[in-house]
Amino acid sequence: MTVTTTTSADLRSESVRSLYDQVMARCKDIDHLMGIGGILHWDQEVMMPSKAAAVRSEQMSVLVGVAHEMLTSPVHGALLDELEHRKQHEDLTAVLNPYELANIRLARKTYRDETLVPRDVVKASAALNSKSSAAWAAARKESDFAKFAPLLEEQIKMVRKSIGYKILGGANEEAGKINAKARASLGLSETDDCYKGYYQGLMNLYETGFKEDRLQALFADLKKHLIPLIAKIKAKNFQHDNSFLLRDYDIKRQTEFSHSLAKKIGFDTDAGRLDVSTHPFSGGAHPTDVRMTTRYTLNNLQEGITGTVHETGHSVYEQGRNKEYFGTPVSHALSLGIHESQSLLWERMVGLDKPFWTYALPLLKEKFPEDTQLQSVTVDQFYNGFNRVEPGFIRIEADEVTYPMHVILRYEIEKALVEGDIQVADVPAHWNAKMKEYLGLEVTEDRLGCLQDVHWSFGMVGYFPTYSLGSIYAVQIFTHAREKIPNLDEHLAKGEFHVLKEWLNKNVHEQGSLRESGDDLVFDMTGKHLDSSLYVKYLTDKYTAIYDL
Amino acid sequence: MTVTTTTSADLRSESVRSLYDQVMARCKDIDHLMGIGGILHWDQEVMMPSKAAAVRSEQMSVLVGVAHEMLTSPVHGALLDELEHRKQHEDLTAVLNPYELANIRLARKTYRDETLVPRDVVKASAALNSKSSAAWAAARKESDFAKFAPLLEEQIKMVRKSIGYKILGGANEEAGKINAKARASLGLSETDDCYKGYYQGLMNLYETGFKEDRLQALFADLKKHLIPLIAKIKAKNFQHDNSFLLRDYDIKRQTEFSHSLAKKIGFDTDAGRLDVSTHPFSGGAHPTDVRMTTRYTLNNLQEGITGTVHETGHSVYEQGRNKEYFGTPVSHALSLGIHESQSLLWERMVGLDKPFWTYALPLLKEKFPEDTQLQSVTVDQFYNGFNRVEPGFIRIEADEVTYPMHVILRYEIEKALVEGDIQVADVPAHWNAKMKEYLGLEVTEDRLGCLQDVHWSFGMVGYFPTYSLGSIYAVQIFTHAREKIPNLDEHLAKGEFHVLKEWLNKNVHEQGSLRESGDDLVFDMTGKHLDSSLYVKYLTDKYTAIYDL
Repeated sequence: MTVTTTTSADLRSESVRSLYDQVMARCKDIDHLMGIGGILHWDQEVMMPSKAAAVRSEQMSVLVGVAHEMLTSPVHGALLDELEHRKQHEDLTAVLNPYELANIRLARKTYRDETLVPRDVVKASAALNSKSSAAWAAARKESDFAKFAPLLEEQIKMVRKSIGYKILGGANEEAGKINAKARASLGLSETDDCYKGYYQGLMNLYETGFKEDRLQALFADLKKHLIPLIAKIKAKNFQHDNSFLLRDYDIKRQTEFSHSLAKKIGFDTDAGRLDVSTHPFSGGAHPTDVRMTTRYTLNNLQEGITGTVHETGHSVYEQGRNKEYFGTPVSHALSLGIHESQSLLWERMVGLDKPFWTYALPLLKEKFPEDTQLQSVTVDQFYNGFNRVEPGFIRIEADEVTYPMHVILRYEIEKALVEGDIQVADVPAHWNAKMKEYLGLEVTEDRLGCLQDVHWSFGMVGYFPTYSLGSIYAVQIFTHAREKIPNLDEHLAKGEFHVLKEWLNKNVHEQGSLRESGDDLVFDMTGKHLDSSLYVKYLTDKYTAIYDL
Repeated sequence: MTVTTTTSADLRSESVRSLYDQVMARCKDIDHLMGIGGILHWDQEVMMPSKAAAVRSEQMSVLVGVAHEMLTSPVHGALLDELEHRKQHEDLTAVLNPYELANIRLARKTYRDETLVPRDVVKASAALNSKSSAAWAAARKESDFAKFAPLLEEQIKMVRKSIGYKILGGANEEAGKINAKARASLGLSETDDCYKGYYQGLMNLYETGFKEDRLQALFADLKKHLIPLIAKIKAKNFQHDNSFLLRDYDIKRQTEFSHSLAKKIGFDTDAGRLDVSTHPFSGGAHPTDVRMTTRYTLNNLQEGITGTVHETGHSVYEQGRNKEYFGTPVSHALSLGIHESQSLLWERMVGLDKPFWTYALPLLKEKFPEDTQLQSVTVDQFYNGFNRVEPGFIRIEADEVTYPMHVILRYEIEKALVEGDIQVADVPAHWNAKMKEYLGLEVTEDRLGCLQDVHWSFGMVGYFPTYSLGSIYAVQIFTHAREKIPNLDEHLAKGEFHVLKEWLNKNVHEQGSLRESGDDLVFDMTGKHLDSSLYVKYLTDKYTAIYDL
């Protein structure tokens, strides 16, 4: 089955360059519409008056509808088909450079993704999302998984159905049944369960091109080393003091401090804004218009700082995107994992480490001169208090050692669910058993267990692994940067963050979606595919020292 | 010539209701796109980082392009044509109510306005606007009209060309030459100058349906009475003290005071925002999402207050628009003059008068308790200082007595220019002579004279009269409200502004574009067409008392 059967004879006579330019002109218009959507989203979270919610949702739906129509228009399809035809008959590398070739590949992938799933399935999925997320919120409130279970059941079926169309290339068979050809392409025998391989399809939505068998190997390695490491820290039965972080700190001065850190790291405030919202995010429209948010808590200094540094990592990526190819697909971030690697690199590799606080602690003390406890804290004490490890129930509150276990647990459950190896009703039991095994915790309430995350209620299955891929990428990229940038730690200790930022601009941000996966990006950068041993070594060395293991 | 010749046979079999619903569904989508444009405009003026200017302009252009395509699509035209056909063969009032009938009329007018001018003329006009406004800014800086004159010349030609297409109903003749049929429809003889009647066409763009001969009569009456009144005030050679307004007032507390006034008048802060921008405006997307701005000056208390009350008048109009017909043309404001009447009614009829300050002055004093001069000011002293009349060169700084003369001067010049009675080179001489005659001032610099306003540089000819129509409407509507609302002044003196606001909601805001002109609206409301004598009486009585004439 081909994506579209429309191929105008007129197009055959046009040059590859002309076809490419026409596709890119359309992509740029769509990019602007999506950029407008980014501004509207920011406005909604930060500025919009409450009564505007209903009309904003209608506006977004019209905007997305227009963009979708442009994206799936037969003209767009015909142009892409003609380029595909040329690719099979001419050497396009003679006419188009690697960025341009990537643009064709990416535009075609988006076109397929948008056209393979029938419109009525997309609509049914959106309707289910509303119903299902409302049910999830209600169930979480009452901490009663049974109330969410029927909707999760429907979501799993819907997720299989949608991704089924993509895996099967839009074939019209009943979705969810992989046909013989698709089975073969997935390396499945006739006797294999028919949903095997579906998780790989879902992963591609969020972590483009990343192979699930690679993910399994990485996660197995993490489990092997991190479960014992966490147990060892716990057994130590010792905790560093962090009471100096939990005193009341004036929000206005917290804000000033966070803004100064963001600017110092390299966030260009003439090309973006930093505001406050309930859930921090980095968004906006364009490298010249990045909108990020953070939040401050009066009696938790760490939350505002790490939140801001994290979002600044996302935002300097956005501001650093390729200028020559603005508005075209290749200028966009490669994957969620790679995007997360940039926020985590700044949040953890830089912002949790001693060089950073050698620079920043004196400034923090200047900001709060009247706080005598803070004044007496040394960089070492600050570092130890800032890096406490404490296994807990909630993923988004987890430290960098326990975080991967939260993700692996979710990955194992969602894969088993979507591929048919466990039933929805058994989710709480699986969840609780894994929490016990990985973190040594007894889950007593679904609210603190399998009902804590919103993702599944929106049909987002395959998303969770990107969080941990991000942290493994971050260590590998930062380790490489330290080898390549002379005296990096000394620069960081002096607040000369631009050295690292500019290196990342060149080696990550400007690379955009030139490569087919994050694995390829780190291979081309470091000579090795994504390597969990670096991550394990980083955590083991760091926390062996902090907890004197 | 008809607007479109596409009439699908399929449409003939559809019911009027179905045709209407289809047109309205399209109008609502377009309305949402324009609403998004309103949010983007607000963002640009209030929030946007500076480097985003270039991409924002591209986003707007894509958005407007998409809306224009929907608005001018052959499907839209065919639906409107079919409804026009039915109108001539059926009694539509049996099926559609007056709001719905107005919606068809308005949708058809917009379709015609958008399709009659060829796309290349629209583009050439947009390009000229960029060039011409840049030339204007440079010329104003150097106070040298000669530097702007060639571009103004081009603008006058372009304005004639564009409006020519609309007047001639899209005929393909060389624009600017009225053909015999059009001449006849304008009541022109063969010997009349061929641009006669063009000003009426231009006026329709801003003050829909208002007849220019009515405007001429109103303006003649104002000249007759206001020129002597201004001269009398001047001859008095006396000025009321307003030094208490020109002291330093903390901006934060000015902001709080203005916000409390806006809320008290009835601006719903859950359905809108009040922020600060260089040029105050009221905009946004929808009655549930109105964005207005004001500005504050440290040593001018009047500026922030009147600016806020003015924009609040616009904004309560927007928030009060018809809820049943949200998103359809009839729910929108009738004309610029009617919109301005609502801002001016609150700014002047309410906000400059004693009942308002009987309520507000004590609150103002509470806000600035340490200002001993302000504490000692009485309501009468405040009123006299707040209502100083001082003829000046600059329109936007003018008081309510001299303001109309600024407008009439511009109207006379722009009409003569566009209809070919004067030449561009003679504009400064005409301007300066009229300033002398109307306000007794000698213009010594073009910067303070014919170069002060941006309008002509954007081809906006026919816009200026709406400012003064707004003030005449305001007096007539307020005079009527005072007759209809028992004890209105007592309510205002107690800060019970909702009584007036709700009356305006019902009698003006919810009426939307139901009528064909502002003249019709006030006729239906008050039993009289727009009447300048009320305005003249209001000003004469008020300032005779203030200046003891």
